[in-house]
Amino acid sequence: MPPSSSIAKAIKFGPFTVTSQVFYKTPLTFCLVNLKPLLPGHILVCPLRSVPHLSDLRPNELHDLFSTVQLASVTLKRVYGAPACNIAIQDGEAAGQSVKHVHCHVIPRKDKDMEERGGGDKLYEELEGVEGDVGMHQKEQIQGEQRQGKGKFPKQKDEDRKPRSMEEMEKEAAWLAEEILKDVREREGANGSSL
Amino acid sequence: MPPSSSIAKAIKFGPFTVTSQVFYKTPLTFCLVNLKPLLPGHILVCPLRSVPHLSDLRPNELHDLFSTVQLASVTLKRVYGAPACNIAIQDGEAAGQSVKHVHCHVIPRKDKDMEERGGGDKLYEELEGVEGDVGMHQKEQIQGEQRQGKGKFPKQKDEDRKPRSMEEMEKEAAWLAEEILKDVREREGANGSSL
Repeated sequence: MPPSSSIAKAIKFGPFTVTSQVFYKTPLTFCLVNLKPLLPGHILVCPLRSVPHLSDLRPNELHDLFSTVQLASVTLKRVYGAPACNIAIQDGEAAGQSVKHVHCHVIPRKDKDMEERGGGDKLYEELEGVEGDVGMHQKEQIQGEQRQGKGKFPKQKDEDRKPRSMEEMEKEAAWLAEEILKDVREREGANGSSL
Repeated sequence: MPPSSSIAKAIKFGPFTVTSQVFYKTPLTFCLVNLKPLLPGHILVCPLRSVPHLSDLRPNELHDLFSTVQLASVTLKRVYGAPACNIAIQDGEAAGQSVKHVHCHVIPRKDKDMEERGGGDKLYEELEGVEGDVGMHQKEQIQGEQRQGKGKFPKQKDEDRKPRSMEEMEKEAAWLAEEILKDVREREGANGSSL
Protein backbone atom coordinates (compact mmCIF):
# COMPACT_ATOMS: atom_id res chain seq x y z
CA MET A 1 0.00 0.00 0.00
CA PRO A 2 1.59 3.33 -1.03
CA PRO A 3 1.98 5.97 1.69
CA SER A 4 -0.54 8.29 0.06
CA SER A 5 -3.38 5.82 0.55
CA SER A 6 -2.23 4.85 4.04
CA ILE A 7 -2.41 8.45 5.23
CA ALA A 8 -5.58 9.38 3.35
CA LYS A 9 -7.99 9.26 6.30
CA ALA A 10 -8.09 12.34 8.58
CA ILE A 11 -5.73 11.88 11.52
CA LYS A 12 -6.30 13.68 14.79
CA PHE A 13 -3.68 14.66 17.36
CA GLY A 14 -5.76 15.56 20.37
CA PRO A 15 -8.32 18.03 18.99
CA PHE A 16 -6.18 18.92 15.95
CA THR A 17 -6.38 17.49 12.44
CA VAL A 18 -2.78 16.82 11.44
CA THR A 19 -3.29 14.56 8.41
CA SER A 20 -0.99 16.48 6.07
CA GLN A 21 1.81 16.49 8.69
CA VAL A 22 1.74 12.67 8.95
CA PHE A 23 4.51 10.81 7.15
CA TYR A 24 4.02 7.29 8.46
CA LYS A 25 1.09 5.31 9.76
CA THR A 26 0.50 1.80 10.99
CA PRO A 27 -2.89 0.39 12.05
CA LEU A 28 -2.20 1.72 15.59
CA THR A 29 0.42 4.50 15.36
CA PHE A 30 1.31 7.59 13.36
CA CYS A 31 4.34 9.89 12.96
CA LEU A 32 4.01 13.59 12.23
CA VAL A 33 6.40 16.41 11.40
CA ASN A 34 6.34 19.44 13.71
CA LEU A 35 5.09 22.93 12.95
CA LYS A 36 8.06 24.29 14.92
CA PRO A 37 10.82 21.68 15.19
CA LEU A 38 13.36 22.34 17.97
CA LEU A 39 16.04 20.94 15.69
CA PRO A 40 15.83 19.67 12.10
CA GLY A 41 14.01 16.34 12.07
CA HIS A 42 12.15 16.79 15.37
CA ILE A 43 9.04 14.64 14.97
CA LEU A 44 6.27 13.16 17.14
CA VAL A 45 5.10 9.55 17.32
CA CYS A 46 1.55 8.99 18.63
CA PRO A 47 -0.97 6.20 19.08
CA LEU A 48 -3.95 6.61 16.74
CA ARG A 49 -6.30 6.17 19.68
CA SER A 50 -6.26 9.46 21.58
CA VAL A 51 -5.53 8.69 25.23
CA PRO A 52 -3.58 10.93 27.63
CA HIS A 53 -1.34 8.49 29.50
CA LEU A 54 1.14 5.80 28.56
CA SER A 55 -0.66 3.56 31.05
CA ASP A 56 -3.85 3.91 28.97
CA LEU A 57 -2.25 2.07 26.05
CA ARG A 58 -3.09 -1.58 25.45
CA PRO A 59 -0.14 -3.96 24.96
CA ASN A 60 -0.47 -4.01 21.15
CA GLU A 61 -0.69 -0.19 21.03
CA LEU A 62 2.30 0.20 23.36
CA HIS A 63 4.43 -2.23 21.36
CA ASP A 64 3.49 -0.69 18.05
CA LEU A 65 4.20 2.83 19.36
CA PHE A 66 7.75 2.01 20.45
CA SER A 67 8.44 -0.23 17.50
CA THR A 68 7.60 2.87 15.43
CA VAL A 69 9.73 5.12 17.65
CA GLN A 70 12.64 2.74 17.10
CA LEU A 71 12.03 2.73 13.34
CA ALA A 72 11.72 6.53 13.22
CA SER A 73 14.97 6.93 15.20
CA VAL A 74 16.79 4.86 12.57
CA THR A 75 15.34 6.87 9.67
CA LEU A 76 15.92 10.27 11.28
CA LYS A 77 19.50 9.49 12.23
CA ARG A 78 20.18 8.25 8.71
CA VAL A 79 18.57 11.06 6.74
CA TYR A 80 19.77 13.88 9.02
CA GLY A 81 23.26 12.40 9.41
CA ALA A 82 22.81 12.43 13.21
CA PRO A 83 24.61 9.90 15.43
CA ALA A 84 22.10 10.24 18.26
CA CYS A 85 18.60 11.31 19.23
CA ASN A 86 16.57 12.35 22.24
CA ILE A 87 13.39 10.44 22.93
CA ALA A 88 10.97 11.98 25.43
CA ILE A 89 7.42 11.63 26.66
CA GLN A 90 5.67 14.04 29.00
CA ASP A 91 3.19 11.71 30.63
CA GLY A 92 0.65 14.04 32.22
CA GLU A 93 0.23 17.78 32.74
CA ALA A 94 2.56 17.98 35.76
CA ALA A 95 5.28 16.60 33.47
CA GLY A 96 4.69 19.36 30.89
CA GLN A 97 2.16 17.64 28.63
CA SER A 98 -0.22 20.06 26.91
CA VAL A 99 -2.02 17.97 24.30
CA LYS A 100 -3.74 15.14 26.20
CA HIS A 101 -2.84 12.57 23.58
CA VAL A 102 0.26 10.41 24.19
CA HIS A 103 3.11 11.71 22.01
CA CYS A 104 6.75 10.73 21.92
CA HIS A 105 9.26 13.36 20.79
CA VAL A 106 12.10 12.03 18.64
CA ILE A 107 14.84 14.63 18.01
CA PRO A 108 17.97 13.81 15.99
CA ARG A 109 21.13 15.09 17.71
CA LYS A 110 24.59 15.95 16.42
CA ASP A 111 27.64 17.02 18.38
CA LYS A 112 27.41 20.69 19.33
CA ASP A 113 24.08 21.11 17.50
CA MET A 114 22.76 23.27 20.33
CA GLU A 115 25.93 25.26 20.97
CA GLU A 116 24.68 28.43 19.30
CA ARG A 117 21.56 28.25 21.42
CA GLY A 118 23.25 27.78 24.78
CA GLY A 119 24.24 24.10 24.84
CA GLY A 120 22.40 20.80 25.13
CA ASP A 121 20.54 21.89 28.28
CA LYS A 122 18.79 24.50 26.19
CA LEU A 123 17.10 21.76 24.14
CA TYR A 124 15.42 20.48 27.27
CA GLU A 125 14.25 23.93 28.24
CA GLU A 126 12.83 24.36 24.78
CA LEU A 127 11.30 20.90 24.90
CA GLU A 128 9.54 21.81 28.13
CA GLY A 129 8.53 25.04 26.41
CA VAL A 130 7.40 23.46 23.16
CA GLU A 131 5.09 21.15 25.03
CA GLY A 132 2.84 24.10 25.59
CA ASP A 133 3.63 25.02 22.02
CA VAL A 134 2.57 21.70 20.49
CA GLY A 135 -1.00 22.62 21.30
CA MET A 136 -0.55 26.36 20.97
CA HIS A 137 1.18 26.10 17.60
CA GLN A 138 -1.58 23.99 16.14
CA LYS A 139 -4.08 26.56 17.39
CA GLU A 140 -1.99 29.39 15.96
CA GLN A 141 -1.88 27.58 12.67
CA ILE A 142 -5.66 27.45 12.52
CA GLN A 143 -5.87 31.11 13.50
CA GLY A 144 -3.16 31.89 10.98
CA GLU A 145 -5.03 30.10 8.23
CA GLN A 146 -8.14 32.03 9.13
CA ARG A 147 -6.19 35.25 9.06
CA GLN A 148 -4.40 34.28 5.89
CA GLY A 149 -7.87 33.95 4.37
CA LYS A 150 -8.13 37.66 5.11
CA GLY A 151 -4.68 38.35 3.67
CA LYS A 152 -2.83 38.38 7.00
CA PHE A 153 0.14 36.45 8.29
CA PRO A 154 -0.02 33.81 11.03
CA LYS A 155 0.50 35.12 14.54
CA GLN A 156 3.98 34.33 15.81
CA LYS A 157 4.17 34.30 19.59
CA ASP A 158 7.67 32.96 20.15
CA GLU A 159 10.25 34.83 18.17
CA ASP A 160 12.96 32.16 18.10
CA ARG A 161 11.25 29.63 15.93
CA LYS A 162 9.18 30.36 12.87
CA PRO A 163 6.09 28.24 12.32
CA ARG A 164 6.58 26.46 9.03
CA SER A 165 4.22 26.71 6.10
CA MET A 166 1.91 23.79 5.38
CA GLU A 167 3.73 23.43 2.06
CA GLU A 168 7.08 23.05 3.79
CA MET A 169 5.70 20.49 6.22
CA GLU A 170 4.00 18.53 3.46
CA LYS A 171 7.26 18.48 1.53
CA GLU A 172 9.15 17.15 4.56
CA ALA A 173 6.38 14.64 5.30
CA ALA A 174 6.48 13.33 1.72
CA TRP A 175 10.28 13.01 1.87
CA LEU A 176 10.21 11.23 5.25
CA ALA A 177 7.36 8.99 4.04
CA GLU A 178 9.65 7.73 1.28
CA GLU A 179 12.69 7.44 3.53
CA ILE A 180 11.00 5.59 6.39
CA LEU A 181 9.68 3.00 3.95
CA LYS A 182 13.29 2.10 3.10
CA ASP A 183 13.86 1.23 6.75
CA VAL A 184 10.55 -0.63 6.95
CA ARG A 185 11.69 -2.81 4.05
CA GLU A 186 15.11 -3.33 5.64
CA ARG A 187 13.50 -4.30 8.94
CA GLU A 188 11.12 -6.70 7.21
CA GLY A 189 14.08 -8.23 5.38
CA ALA A 190 16.06 -8.55 8.63
CA ASN A 191 13.13 -10.10 10.47
CA GLY A 192 12.50 -12.47 7.57
CA SER A 193 16.11 -13.66 7.53
CA SER A 194 16.36 -13.95 11.33
CA LEU A 195 13.20 -16.03 11.67
CA MET B 1 9.19 -16.47 42.04
CA PRO B 2 9.91 -13.98 44.86
CA PRO B 3 11.81 -10.80 43.96
CA SER B 4 14.83 -11.82 46.04
CA SER B 5 15.52 -14.86 43.87
CA SER B 6 14.72 -13.01 40.62
CA ILE B 7 17.40 -10.38 41.35
CA ALA B 8 20.00 -12.75 42.81
CA LYS B 9 22.33 -12.83 39.78
CA ALA B 10 24.78 -9.92 39.38
CA ILE B 11 23.28 -7.29 37.13
CA LYS B 12 25.46 -4.92 35.11
CA PHE B 13 24.59 -1.43 33.92
CA GLY B 14 27.32 -0.73 31.39
CA PRO B 15 30.54 -1.51 33.31
CA PHE B 16 28.89 -1.12 36.73
CA THR B 17 27.47 -3.83 38.96
CA VAL B 18 24.13 -2.48 40.18
CA THR B 19 22.52 -5.65 41.56
CA SER B 20 21.55 -4.17 44.93
CA GLN B 21 19.95 -1.13 43.22
CA VAL B 22 17.65 -3.37 41.13
CA PHE B 23 14.03 -3.64 42.26
CA TYR B 24 12.45 -5.44 39.32
CA LYS B 25 13.67 -7.84 36.69
CA THR B 26 12.15 -9.73 33.80
CA PRO B 27 14.03 -12.18 31.55
CA LEU B 28 15.02 -9.20 29.34
CA THR B 29 14.74 -6.01 31.41
CA PHE B 30 15.63 -4.55 34.82
CA CYS B 31 14.70 -1.46 36.85
CA LEU B 32 17.13 0.22 39.23
CA VAL B 33 16.94 3.02 41.78
CA ASN B 34 19.33 5.94 41.30
CA LEU B 35 22.31 6.90 43.42
CA LYS B 36 21.31 10.55 42.99
CA PRO B 37 17.64 10.83 41.99
CA LEU B 38 16.66 14.18 40.46
CA LEU B 39 13.32 13.89 42.21
CA PRO B 40 12.00 11.23 44.61
CA GLY B 41 11.27 8.07 42.66
CA HIS B 42 13.59 8.80 39.70
CA ILE B 43 14.52 5.35 38.39
CA LEU B 44 16.09 3.79 35.28
CA VAL B 45 14.75 0.96 33.12
CA CYS B 46 17.33 -0.97 31.05
CA PRO B 47 17.56 -4.01 28.82
CA LEU B 48 19.62 -6.79 30.46
CA ARG B 49 21.69 -7.06 27.27
CA SER B 50 24.09 -4.13 27.28
CA VAL B 51 23.74 -2.34 23.95
CA PRO B 52 24.15 1.41 23.38
CA HIS B 53 21.28 2.26 21.03
CA LEU B 54 17.53 1.73 20.97
CA SER B 55 17.98 0.49 17.42
CA ASP B 56 20.21 -2.33 18.75
CA LEU B 57 17.27 -3.88 20.62
CA ARG B 58 15.52 -6.92 19.17
CA PRO B 59 11.71 -6.75 18.99
CA ASN B 60 11.19 -8.85 22.14
CA GLU B 61 13.74 -6.73 24.08
CA LEU B 62 12.16 -3.49 22.87
CA HIS B 63 8.66 -4.61 23.76
CA ASP B 64 9.69 -5.89 27.16
CA LEU B 65 11.60 -2.67 27.91
CA PHE B 66 8.62 -0.40 27.26
CA SER B 67 6.13 -2.79 28.81
CA THR B 68 8.31 -2.46 31.93
CA VAL B 69 8.54 1.34 31.55
CA GLN B 70 4.72 1.44 31.40
CA LEU B 71 4.48 -0.78 34.47
CA ALA B 72 7.07 1.26 36.40
CA SER B 73 5.25 4.51 35.52
CA VAL B 74 2.07 3.10 37.09
CA THR B 75 3.87 1.98 40.25
CA LEU B 76 5.86 5.20 40.68
CA LYS B 77 2.85 7.44 40.19
CA ARG B 78 0.88 5.38 42.70
CA VAL B 79 3.50 5.09 45.45
CA TYR B 80 4.79 8.67 45.12
CA GLY B 81 1.30 10.16 44.74
CA ALA B 82 2.38 11.76 41.45
CA PRO B 83 -0.14 12.46 38.67
CA ALA B 84 2.51 12.47 35.94
CA CYS B 85 6.00 11.41 34.97
CA ASN B 86 8.77 12.25 32.53
CA ILE B 87 10.11 9.44 30.38
CA ALA B 88 13.38 10.09 28.55
CA ILE B 89 16.08 8.26 26.66
CA GLN B 90 19.36 9.78 25.53
CA ASP B 91 20.09 7.61 22.53
CA GLY B 92 23.77 8.20 21.83
CA GLU B 93 26.53 10.46 23.14
CA ALA B 94 25.48 13.52 21.12
CA ALA B 95 22.13 13.27 22.92
CA GLY B 96 23.82 13.31 26.33
CA GLN B 97 24.22 9.57 26.93
CA SER B 98 27.20 8.69 29.13
CA VAL B 99 26.75 5.01 29.98
CA LYS B 100 26.62 3.17 26.65
CA HIS B 101 23.83 0.89 27.77
CA VAL B 102 20.25 1.82 26.80
CA HIS B 103 18.50 3.33 29.83
CA CYS B 104 15.12 4.97 30.13
CA HIS B 105 14.67 7.56 32.87
CA VAL B 106 11.27 7.49 34.58
CA ILE B 107 10.70 10.47 36.90
CA PRO B 108 7.44 10.94 38.83
CA ARG B 109 6.18 14.54 38.60
CA LYS B 110 3.86 16.57 40.77
CA ASP B 111 2.59 20.10 40.23
CA LYS B 112 5.25 22.65 41.20
CA ASP B 113 7.68 19.91 42.32
CA MET B 114 10.57 21.80 40.70
CA GLU B 115 9.52 25.29 41.76
CA GLU B 116 12.15 25.62 44.50
CA ARG B 117 14.81 24.61 42.00
CA GLY B 118 13.85 27.04 39.25
CA GLY B 119 10.80 25.45 37.58
CA GLY B 120 10.17 22.45 35.34
CA ASP B 121 12.88 23.49 32.86
CA LYS B 122 15.44 22.93 35.58
CA LEU B 123 14.62 19.21 35.64
CA TYR B 124 15.71 18.93 32.04
CA GLU B 125 18.94 20.77 32.69
CA GLU B 126 19.60 18.43 35.57
CA LEU B 127 18.61 15.44 33.47
CA GLU B 128 21.16 16.47 30.83
CA GLY B 129 23.61 16.95 33.70
CA VAL B 130 22.80 13.68 35.44
CA GLU B 131 23.50 11.76 32.28
CA GLY B 132 27.17 12.40 32.85
CA ASP B 133 26.43 11.68 36.48
CA VAL B 134 24.86 8.28 35.94
CA GLY B 135 28.28 7.00 35.02
CA MET B 136 30.24 9.40 37.21
CA HIS B 137 28.15 8.65 40.28
CA GLN B 138 28.63 4.92 39.94
CA LYS B 139 32.38 5.56 39.63
CA GLU B 140 32.30 7.87 42.64
CA GLN B 141 30.50 5.22 44.58
CA ILE B 142 33.26 2.71 43.88
CA GLN B 143 35.91 5.31 44.75
CA GLY B 144 33.92 6.20 47.84
CA GLU B 145 33.74 2.60 48.94
CA GLN B 146 37.47 2.26 48.38
CA ARG B 147 38.10 5.39 50.40
CA GLN B 148 35.60 4.38 53.02
CA GLY B 149 37.72 1.28 53.46
CA LYS B 150 40.44 3.74 54.46
CA GLY B 151 38.07 5.58 56.79
CA LYS B 152 37.29 8.43 54.39
CA PHE B 153 34.03 9.73 53.01
CA PRO B 154 32.91 9.36 49.41
CA LYS B 155 33.97 12.17 47.12
CA GLN B 156 31.05 14.43 46.34
CA LYS B 157 31.54 16.43 43.16
CA ASP B 158 28.17 18.05 42.75
CA GLU B 159 27.04 19.81 45.87
CA ASP B 160 23.33 19.93 45.09
CA ARG B 161 22.52 16.27 45.32
CA LYS B 162 23.94 13.91 47.91
CA PRO B 163 24.80 10.40 46.76
CA ARG B 164 22.67 8.05 48.77
CA SER B 165 24.03 5.27 50.93
CA MET B 166 23.81 1.72 49.66
CA GLU B 167 21.59 1.00 52.65
CA GLU B 168 19.14 3.71 51.63
CA MET B 169 19.05 2.49 48.04
CA GLU B 170 18.56 -1.11 49.10
CA LYS B 171 15.70 -0.05 51.34
CA GLU B 172 14.02 1.82 48.48
CA ALA B 173 14.68 -1.06 46.10
CA ALA B 174 13.10 -3.56 48.51
CA TRP B 175 10.06 -1.31 48.94
CA LEU B 176 9.63 -0.75 45.18
CA ALA B 177 10.15 -4.49 44.56
CA GLU B 178 7.09 -5.19 46.72
CA GLU B 179 5.07 -2.35 45.25
CA ILE B 180 5.70 -3.10 41.59
CA LEU B 181 4.61 -6.71 42.13
CA LYS B 182 1.16 -5.42 43.09
CA ASP B 183 0.88 -3.77 39.68
CA VAL B 184 2.26 -6.88 37.96
CA ARG B 185 -0.54 -8.92 39.56
CA GLU B 186 -3.12 -6.31 38.61
CA ARG B 187 -1.87 -6.28 35.02
CA GLU B 188 -1.92 -10.08 34.84
CA GLY B 189 -5.46 -10.04 36.17
CA ALA B 190 -6.54 -7.40 33.64
CA ASN B 191 -4.89 -9.26 30.76
CA GLY B 192 -6.46 -12.51 31.89
CA SER B 193 -9.95 -11.02 31.94
CA SER B 194 -9.52 -9.24 28.60
CA LEU B 195 -8.27 -12.33 26.77
